[in-house]
Formats: sequence, structure tokens, C-alpha cells
Amino acid sequence: MQRKIYLDMHSLVEAQQIFWTRFQHHDTGEESIASRSAMGRVTAGPVSARFSSPLVHSAAMDGLAVRAEDTFSARDDAPLTLQIGTGQATLINTGYPLPPQANAVVMIENVQLNEDSSEATILAPVYPWQHVRKVGEDIVATELLFPTGHQLRAADIGALLTGGCSTVLVRRRPKVVIIPTGNELVPLEECPETVPMGKIIESNASVLAGLAEQAGADVHIAPIVPDDFSTIKTTLQQVIAGEADLVLLNAGSSAGSADYAVRVIEELGEVLVHGITIMPGKPTILGAIANKAVVGIPGYPVSAIIAMQQLVVPLLLQMQGLHVPAPNTVKAILAKDMPSKSGIEEFRRVIVGRIKDNFIAVPIKQGAGAITTLTRANGIFRIAASSEGEVHGREVDIELLVPRPQAERTLLCTGSHDLCLDVLGDFLNKQNPTYPLASTHVGSLGGIMALNQGMCHLAGSHLLDPADGSYNTSYVRKYLAGRAIAIVTLVHREQGFIVAKGNPKNIRTVHDLYNEEVYFINRQAGSGTRILLDYELDRHNLDPDGIKGYQQDEYTHMAVAVAVLSGKADTGLGIKSAANALGLDFVPLIEERYDLLIPGEQYETTMIQAVLEIINTTKFQQTVEKMGGYSTRDTGNMVCER
Amino acid sequence: MQRKIYLDMHSLVEAQQIFWTRFQHHDTGEESIASRSAMGRVTAGPVSARFSSPLVHSAAMDGLAVRAEDTFSARDDAPLTLQIGTGQATLINTGYPLPPQANAVVMIENVQLNEDSSEATILAPVYPWQHVRKVGEDIVATELLFPTGHQLRAADIGALLTGGCSTVLVRRRPKVVIIPTGNELVPLEECPETVPMGKIIESNASVLAGLAEQAGADVHIAPIVPDDFSTIKTTLQQVIAGEADLVLLNAGSSAGSADYAVRVIEELGEVLVHGITIMPGKPTILGAIANKAVVGIPGYPVSAIIAMQQLVVPLLLQMQGLHVPAPNTVKAILAKDMPSKSGIEEFRRVIVGRIKDNFIAVPIKQGAGAITTLTRANGIFRIAASSEGEVHGREVDIELLVPRPQAERTLLCTGSHDLCLDVLGDFLNKQNPTYPLASTHVGSLGGIMALNQGMCHLAGSHLLDPADGSYNTSYVRKYLAGRAIAIVTLVHREQGFIVAKGNPKNIRTVHDLYNEEVYFINRQAGSGTRILLDYELDRHNLDPDGIKGYQQDEYTHMAVAVAVLSGKADTGLGIKSAANALGLDFVPLIEERYDLLIPGEQYETTMIQAVLEIINTTKFQQTVEKMGGYSTRDTGNMVCER
Repeated sequence: MQRKIYLDMHSLVEAQQIFWTRFQHHDTGEESIASRSAMGRVTAGPVSARFSSPLVHSAAMDGLAVRAEDTFSARDDAPLTLQIGTGQATLINTGYPLPPQANAVVMIENVQLNEDSSEATILAPVYPWQHVRKVGEDIVATELLFPTGHQLRAADIGALLTGGCSTVLVRRRPKVVIIPTGNELVPLEECPETVPMGKIIESNASVLAGLAEQAGADVHIAPIVPDDFSTIKTTLQQVIAGEADLVLLNAGSSAGSADYAVRVIEELGEVLVHGITIMPGKPTILGAIANKAVVGIPGYPVSAIIAMQQLVVPLLLQMQGLHVPAPNTVKAILAKDMPSKSGIEEFRRVIVGRIKDNFIAVPIKQGAGAITTLTRANGIFRIAASSEGEVHGREVDIELLVPRPQAERTLLCTGSHDLCLDVLGDFLNKQNPTYPLASTHVGSLGGIMALNQGMCHLAGSHLLDPADGSYNTSYVRKYLAGRAIAIVTLVHREQGFIVAKGNPKNIRTVHDLYNEEVYFINRQAGSGTRILLDYELDRHNLDPDGIKGYQQDEYTHMAVAVAVLSGKADTGLGIKSAANALGLDFVPLIEERYDLLIPGEQYETTMIQAVLEIINTTKFQQTVEKMGGYSTRDTGNMVCER
Repeated sequence: MQRKIYLDMHSLVEAQQIFWTRFQHHDTGEESIASRSAMGRVTAGPVSARFSSPLVHSAAMDGLAVRAEDTFSARDDAPLTLQIGTGQATLINTGYPLPPQANAVVMIENVQLNEDSSEATILAPVYPWQHVRKVGEDIVATELLFPTGHQLRAADIGALLTGGCSTVLVRRRPKVVIIPTGNELVPLEECPETVPMGKIIESNASVLAGLAEQAGADVHIAPIVPDDFSTIKTTLQQVIAGEADLVLLNAGSSAGSADYAVRVIEELGEVLVHGITIMPGKPTILGAIANKAVVGIPGYPVSAIIAMQQLVVPLLLQMQGLHVPAPNTVKAILAKDMPSKSGIEEFRRVIVGRIKDNFIAVPIKQGAGAITTLTRANGIFRIAASSEGEVHGREVDIELLVPRPQAERTLLCTGSHDLCLDVLGDFLNKQNPTYPLASTHVGSLGGIMALNQGMCHLAGSHLLDPADGSYNTSYVRKYLAGRAIAIVTLVHREQGFIVAKGNPKNIRTVHDLYNEEVYFINRQAGSGTRILLDYELDRHNLDPDGIKGYQQDEYTHMAVAVAVLSGKADTGLGIKSAANALGLDFVPLIEERYDLLIPGEQYETTMIQAVLEIINTTKFQQTVEKMGGYSTRDTGNMVCER
């Protein structure tokens, strides 16, 4: 096991320059392919037409093909009648070749036909070549249709075929080979029921393949290679000796005992860069073996994607002579502080939505190992290495991961967590246009704070007022004084003890938590569930400090259920659906009301109206009731108008 | 043959609304596919995770897995040594499952190993769950990964696999069937040498297929159907009875004698729209048969593409619940007047380039039948039905057909035509980045006028001054007085008579044009070639009026050659390479100089410097000389500095 890593870290820009300068002119070769399937490909040489178009003089209009000279006498007061089918005049459709003697077309609108269409009368002459597409008007045989390095669009395929080019010489797609390495990796296909103990499902290869294919590459995924130096070396040697233009080794790029990538690349070729001052993505290796690009991609899924997008995708485009698109950037206001370590460029995942005239960027909990931080995000906030981050309320540049209109339609729902929000999100996404619901779980009070700062469209809340047993209203009055806030009930739900299957510690009431054998897991301060617990303890004159684990907290019902499932805790307070989802048991303690808090200025927007419409449908309410632990008897009820 | 067409024309917006409202919610069905190949597809239902991730507590760092409680005594001044492999401490790599008893990881940087790695010494404690990725931290089994209607991105594939979803339920791609109709159509594959007399190569089907596939459709192209009412009807009936979601009939949508589309659709279903006030694309038919969308696409290639892009592509995206991207628009200054018929919305093809701070839009010669008007264009100027067009110098919105940076790098070359410009364009497009050369042929004087108005980056010119035999300098002095213009020689080239193979009319000198049997084709006034001819006639005291055809003109050397090839004329003055290209004979008359005129303020730009570098290379000059009729002895010579 090495201790010293990354002797010589590079910035992202330096790394890009070193790597791209070396490989951007890499020749992937050329191939002749059918023009019909050449869309998106790049010409490898100048393309010249073989045929002219039109190939012969053709009618540009539906009408009567004539010799112009024969029509010169036609006038309003001197109609001219021509014989059809004798060679003097011929009915003709647009695009059809002119008969040999004809040199003009009379528009059908200006032709009077007799009953059996044997004679045509016209009232005005035509001039030579009128309404005629002359030979070569579009394409002249031998002319240059496309220069070298032209990316073929749909219309271009039409020009190729019309110009008689049934095949076209194009650059070969860059060939990318992906080698997944790691003893712990197992293909999902080998895990029909569950994942074998100690194994991890291999998922990066398909993600990297998708990104490479999107960039026009031809991708091959090699079988998983175990963490064995000589096996990795032999595999890489074989791949390099083959047709690959670029090889991705994933992972083994950091410095664990099984991280062999650097040593293998060093022995076979040259390590250009090891360690880049980005996060995620730091342990990336850029190398060259036998003039082929080799990249050690980090194993964490988010690191892998960032490294791929920042370093490999642009190179693949450049190898094809293609344009590297600029990121789609919007200005957005940060909803929270985002501190950052100076000296490292951070790629922070955020959710962007538009509130009135501003985009708002809400950070997602980080973790390079958590793919869902990227799948839930619709934007990236890049924090420069020179920066120590930004504070909330600042306007920053966000790189969008979705089309801008989709970000504009994203509903920011910040506050308490409930599974009904997922159901609501699913219904909203079935709409046309869709309204993606992005819910961030910060507890009920967190949601009220976000409303206060104008950082969300709506908030889920279940804050009990111990004084009168009411929900939410007194809190809104206190923390959002003077603000017009509509309170609409989403559901009533059961809160209770989430316990292991069979309730082995026999937990029935709050009193059962006072037991040396019972380890509790709490929810964070400010969450409605924590307030509910404290209310129950207070009602029974119980001291929180007597509960083992009271100080340990989690941020969601699901996290509490997971803690119970994994044995980390024996019980925690949560909703029934969370217990159901993980096959755990549930001991009901109390029914509470869960409301949506909606600022008055948002209430009439199409997005919020879509929410209100959905929660009032039978279909939504049936779906919710089916999860168990919910009642929709007051769903959609306006507790408090704006 | 019908006289009356389009009883009830619709505007584009009306037509879109009628058609899309009817079919945007068309259900294409759903299918279960492998998650690995699901990128870009749209979920047909909510997708929930089957497995958690991590599935077990895992190391978040390379290091030493321990029980946190065992480390609490470790201090700088009280090092703690743990036994490796006894269950007390275990070396672990990032991502690996924690041993059963462990609940924390000491970072490898903080671990001192003895020689045989049997003991590890640490100087600080860790707290429980430090550097541990807890079970379900990323994904909790049963949680919602994606709502219905979510378009899967690369990262999403990673979440699907990690969440144990080897397959995913997605919407079926809309199935599009394209039926090419027309007696005149022949597949290119049946024309190895030439196109049979009276036939036209079928090219639209592949273009429409490309556009539909780009929009996510699954496309089938039916065999070509002859212009026969009952055959078209039977074919359409069969296709409708099959799996198609949308059918394209191409063409037969206007009102020629063989235009059966409207009648067929009327008999089988319903014509919703026939005739749209757009140009090109007017004869488009929108219909419905058995609740399936049927579109009669016009036959002219540009009309077909406009109709497809404006009406069908957005519908295909909507059927999949996908976002219809807004056009990529730039403000540009019109280089020329563009009059337009009021009452019809025009889609004018233009070439856009950037000159200093402004985009300039140069119109391309129109013609719905000319596919090259679209393949050469990089932008579309949409002229509203309510407008009668715009005058040059006005700022207008242009919809780009290429990425904006490509438009910014486009070199506008306006002026005289020479085939060496194609060679130059090919070399420029091999550069990285590429500089697409867009040359517009308006004659030498036209180029000088464009320079005068700042509407081009450079101009090709071969203007002879009859007074002293010089080229270009006196014209630049006269028409671009006070402007700094660099004059750089591109080539010397032979001008002469382009004649049919074997020179049957035996044309040797200008005197031979004075012959009743000889029909001449001229170049347009203001072209260098026309000035050259007039100079020759003047030198010999000859009267232009005595030449038959002197008043008929064409705008390019190639057009003159085509006129000779097609027998429309016996001869015309032009360059040798044009004669060579079409296999015609050439009688040299005079050698002239062809220069590039470059405004001083453009001279130092990277684009112009790329041009100057290329023309000075041996490779460029060899390619030019190989065409015949050229001398590069002065190529790159600076005739006149800025």
C-alpha cells in the first residue's frame, strides 16, 4: 500500500491541455459507408457529385410543356389552342423531364383544357425556359458537394443521393475500449435476487459507454478484470495492440492496495498526468501507450462521470474534428452557503428552478459515491480552485444538465420528507408539459426558512403546536409573519416506531425506549417528527437524556428505517410507508397532519395549480392510500387561505 | 387534373395546433428494455430501486477498518497499535464492505504500518461511522429512482444498475413508416452508371428517415409505390393496419395529375389540413386515418425538409413527452434585400458569418427543388406572412442550422467564382478548428460592392483594366477609395471558349462567334469574364450585337459549361477547369490573374491568416495545378498591401 500519492497534481486546464494537445489530431482512420446511413458522420475527403441534378431539363410547375416560340402569339383577345399529345404540347407534372422539343412550361392555372384533354387553350405566351429547372441547376456533376471534415446533416444525405454518391468516405468513429477492474465488481446479470456478500454491482462501464457513444465513439466493454497486476497489464497490452483509439481503465486509479492502474501504464507507456485538482475526479490518470490515449477513470460513479465529461468526451469530439459544445449556463441565486476548499475545483450538484424572475440553485447533499446526487441534479455549480466557495443569496453561474425550459419548470419543494411527494412527483411528470418535482429534505422548519428566503415554490410541513394541538398555522404566523401563505393539507399519516421484523425488543410506547437494551435513532432538530417525539415525552414527563441514541440523528424517514434494518438502531420514530418499504414492522403512535405551504405569489402559477389539481384527483388519493399509513380524508383541504 | 387547389389554406401556427392537439397524446405503447441500452429513452412508469446502495456499510476511503471504540485512547503522545488480520483492524480499499465488527475507517494517510503489515499504529481516534458509507446512503431499496416520463441520461443508467434494475419500462419509440410514391422515382442503387432517361433518384425517404430517427422514432421505409391511385390506397391501408404511429406519404401532395395523396387520405380517413401558407412546404397535407397521423409531404426536397421539421419532428418529440428545443437564433444584418410575398411565411436559406461585432446574413439563391440551397446554408431567415420582406442593412433574427461557434468561424467570400475556392474551402475545413468557406458567386464587381458594404471577409476578383492591362488595382482604387485593401494573387488561369467535345462548330477566335450557326452564352454584366470578352471584342473592333446569344447570360463558369453540355449554347467564355469537369473541350483565349481582395481590418484575423498560410503551401498549389488551366507561379504574392 502506497502512502504518497499524486506527486505532481495538475489543474483541470493544465491536464486538458497536456492530454488534448497530445491526442486531438490522433487519426482514427477512414471508411467508406452507405450515404443513407451517414448522418452525423464526418467526411474524410472532399465529396464530389457524380450526377447532375436535374439530370435533364425538367418541369418546375405542374402544367403544359411547350416550345415557347409556339406561344408567342397567345393573347387575351387571341386565345391560342395547342394539340396535346402531338408533340406540340404535353401535360406534365412538377419534376418530370421536359419532352425533347419543349423549352418552357405553362402553369396549369393558365391552361384551359377541352373535355377529353386533347386540346389546351392559353391566353398568354411564355418565354423560353420559363418554369423549367435546367440541367445542373441544383448540382453539376463533378462539383464539390462537401469539403473534408464536414459533419453530414439530414439534408446533406439528400444531396449525396441526388448527386449519385451511394457511398461516402468518412472518418472512422474513435474506438473506445472500457476495461472494468476490481475483485469486488459483479455484473448485475449475475445478481437476479440479491448481490453476493462483499460484491458491488458494476455500473460505471455502461455509463462511460453511454457518454462515449453520445460523443460519436464506437465502444467495446471488456469483461471485468480482477485486481491483479499482471492480469490488468496483459489485458491492457492486448487492447492497445488491437484497434482501440482510446482505453478507459476503471477503476484502480487512486492509491489503495489494489490500485494498479498507474503502475501498469507507467510500465507499458507514459503517465502524463496523475491527480487533478478537481472534486470529484481527483485520482484521474491520463496516459499514453504506443501513441494511444489511456485514461484511468476513478471508481466512484460521480468521479467517473466528471472525469469522463471534462477530459474524455471533448477529446473524442476533437478526434472527429467536431465542435465541443459550450455548457448551457444560467445565472442562479444560491439557496445555501457552499463553502469549498481552496486549491481544488469543485463540481457541486444542484437543483435549479425558477422563482419569479430568478433561477434558484439548491445544493444536493454531496458524495462522489452517490450516483443519485447526479441523477437528482439538473445543474452543476463549478467552484473555481481559487475560490473558498460562495454564500447563500449570491448570484452564480450554473451549468445546466437539462434543457433550460425543463429547469424553468422544475418545482422546488423544500422541507419535510414524505413518500407522498414521490407520488406527487410521478403524477406531475406525467403531465404535458412535465413539471419535475425536486424535493429537498431539510425538515419542516428548514422548509419554513426556505420559504422565508424565497428559495422554494412550496414546502412540506407537519409542525405540531404542543400548546393547542394544531399543525403548521402557529409556526407560519410566527416565522412567516406578514407573508401570504396558503396551507393545503396533503395527507394525514401515522407516525410510530419503526422496528425490526417481529418487533424483537417489544417496543409499544415511549416508555419502552428507557431500556439499556434499546438503541434509538432520532431525527434532526427542527424536524416535525422530532417535535412530535419531544411532545410525547413531555406529555409523559419523560427526560430525553434517558434514551440511548437520542443524540444520534438522521435526516429522513428512510434513513431511520435503514438504520433499523442494518441493526445500527433498534427503533426510531417515522412513517409507516418507510417501514413498509423495507419490510420492517411498525408500531403506530400518533396520527399527524402533513400540509403543503405555498406562498401567495406562487399560488396562481400553472405549476402550483397543477399540484393542486393532482392532489384533488381520486387517482392520486387512491395511490397514496394504497401505500398504507395514510388517510386522504382532508387531502386538498385549504387550512388557511393566502 | 385539378385546377382548384387548397380550398382552405392554414397558417403554420394553425396547422401545428390542429395537428398536434390531435396527436400529441397519442400513446405509442411501452416496452421493457435492458437498462444498459436505455439512454435517451423515456420511462413509462415510476422506477423503484430493488437493491440498496451501498448494500452494506462500506469504506469511504482507503485505510484501516476498525471499531471506533477501540481507537478512543489513541493520541499523538500515546500511539495505539492494532493487530491486523485478527479482527481488530483490517486494511481496506475504498468501496469495499466493512468487516462485520468494524464501524469506522482510519484514513491510510494516518496509519503507520510495520514492515510485514501485521501491525498498524495510529495517533488519533476516529468516531463511529467516520469514513463509512452507510447502507442505503445512496439508494434505499424500494425508493423512487425516476418518475414516469423521465428521459434517461448516462448517469441515470448507473443508478438503474446500482439499484438492481436490469430492465426498465420505457415508452416505445414512435413508429414512422415512409412511403415514397412516384413513377419517376428510382433508387440510387439501381443507377450504378447513370440515371435512366426520365427518372429521378429517390432521395427524400432517407432524409426524412434521418430527421425522424434524430427525433427518437423507429423508421421503416416502404418500397417505392407507382403513381396509381388504388396501389397507393392499398399500401396506405396496410401500413395503417400495421404498427405505424405516423405515416409519411412522399410525395403526391400537390395537385398534379398524379397527386393522389389528398384523395386517398380523404377516402380512408380525414384530411385535417391541405395547404399551409409557408414557402417552401405549401402543399403539405395533414390527415388522420384510424387515429393515426398521416402526413402528405411535398416532393421538392427543401419543401419536404421544412414540412418535416416544422410539423412532424416536434410532434414525434411530443408523442414521447420530450422537450421541443427552441431554435438557436442570432441577430444578423442582411447583406441583401429580401423581398417576400405577403400572406406567406417564407423560410429563406442564408449563410451567416461574423464580421467584427456583427453577424452578416447572405441569402442563397432560392429554389425548393435545389437541395444545395439547404446544404450550403447555415441559417434560415423566417419572413413572417405579414411581412413583405426586409431590406439590406436591417438586423433580423436568423435560426442557425449549425452550432453558433461554427457560424462565427464561417468565412464569407463573395465575388467572382473560381474552382480554386473549392480547393481552398476543402483545405480550410481540414484545419482544427475548421473555417467553413462560404462562397457566393456574384461576379467580381459584386464582390467589390460587398466589400464596400462590409458584407464579406474577402472577395475573389479578376477585373481587367483595358487601359493598362492591370488587374483589380484600378477598380479597388475607384470603388473602394480610402479603404485599406490587401490584394493577394490566388492564381493565374486560362479563360477560353468552352465547346462541345471535338469542337464541332470549330470555334478558334472571337471572330468565329459571328456565325448564324453559333449560339453563344454570355456571363452577367459586371463579371470579370464579361469584361474580358468585351475587351477582346473591342481590341478587334467587333460589335457585340452581332453575336447570337450575347444577351443571354449565366452567373457561373459551371452554368456556362452546362449550357454547352445540354446543347442550349454552342460556346461561352469560361475557365478550363469548368470544361474539364464536364468532359467538354476548351479553346484557350487569354491568361488572366485572379486575386483575393481582403479588407485591412480583416487581414490579421486568424481566419484570413489561415487562408494566406494555406495558399502558400506546396500541397495547395499542387492540387490547383493538377486541375489544369491554372498557374500558381504568383500564388500568395501581395499585389498591393493594405
